[in-house]
Amino acid sequence: MPTATPIDASADQLAAVTYNSDGLVAAIVQEHGTKDILMMAWMNADTLAETLESGRTVFWSRSRQERWAKGDTSGDRQWVREAYYDCDGDTLLFVVEQEGAGACHTGAKTCFYRSFGSGEPT
Amino acid sequence: MPTATPIDASADQLAAVTYNSDGLVAAIVQEHGTKDILMMAWMNADTLAETLESGRTVFWSRSRQERWAKGDTSGDRQWVREAYYDCDGDTLLFVVEQEGAGACHTGAKTCFYRSFGSGEPT
Repeated sequence: MPTATPIDASADQLAAVTYNSDGLVAAIVQEHGTKDILMMAWMNADTLAETLESGRTVFWSRSRQERWAKGDTSGDRQWVREAYYDCDGDTLLFVVEQEGAGACHTGAKTCFYRSFGSGEPT
Repeated sequence: MPTATPIDASADQLAAVTYNSDGLVAAIVQEHGTKDILMMAWMNADTLAETLESGRTVFWSRSRQERWAKGDTSGDRQWVREAYYDCDGDTLLFVVEQEGAGACHTGAKTCFYRSFGSGEPT
């Protein structure tokens, strides 16, 4: 089983994160190694802190208005290996080891399994 | 110079895209080849259509409330090679050839040049 690697973010780093009017910041999740983009979800300040401290991705569900820790239901947990924030602080990037079948609730490895155009999805 | 490769999206594919209350959808941009994540920005239905038809990324600026075609000012254009939409249609993924120095307005290759923790940024 992958192990948790907490990230000790500085106060300055956390202060650089900007939240939208709902108190949320977008979080992209990329698979370590393959660099496949697995999913995008949202965090608030609390779930960002929990993600960094616990070493597992934890999000905020806009539809359910509640915290959710990725994999608590499915077992498909995501173990954070690297975490970044972008130039204007309103998007985060987590590089993770994905446990289980994948990141998508459909059972697909990635949520981005459908492509525009006539090309085959990856 | 890279060439434009328009993507002929079907009506069903475009109808699967869902927009937020501002009429916007999040668009992740990943570099073809390296699979580095370059940036995240927003599109409305018009700039998504223009992106697919022109083969270059075109976004909607929330701060300026106007259309912007990536690279029109900087020359750092992005040429779309693959385009995906996620399981619930509210996030897009564009795999692009990045022209010029990079995607970030700071001059960095990627907007995600700062990491949480004491690790070195990539």
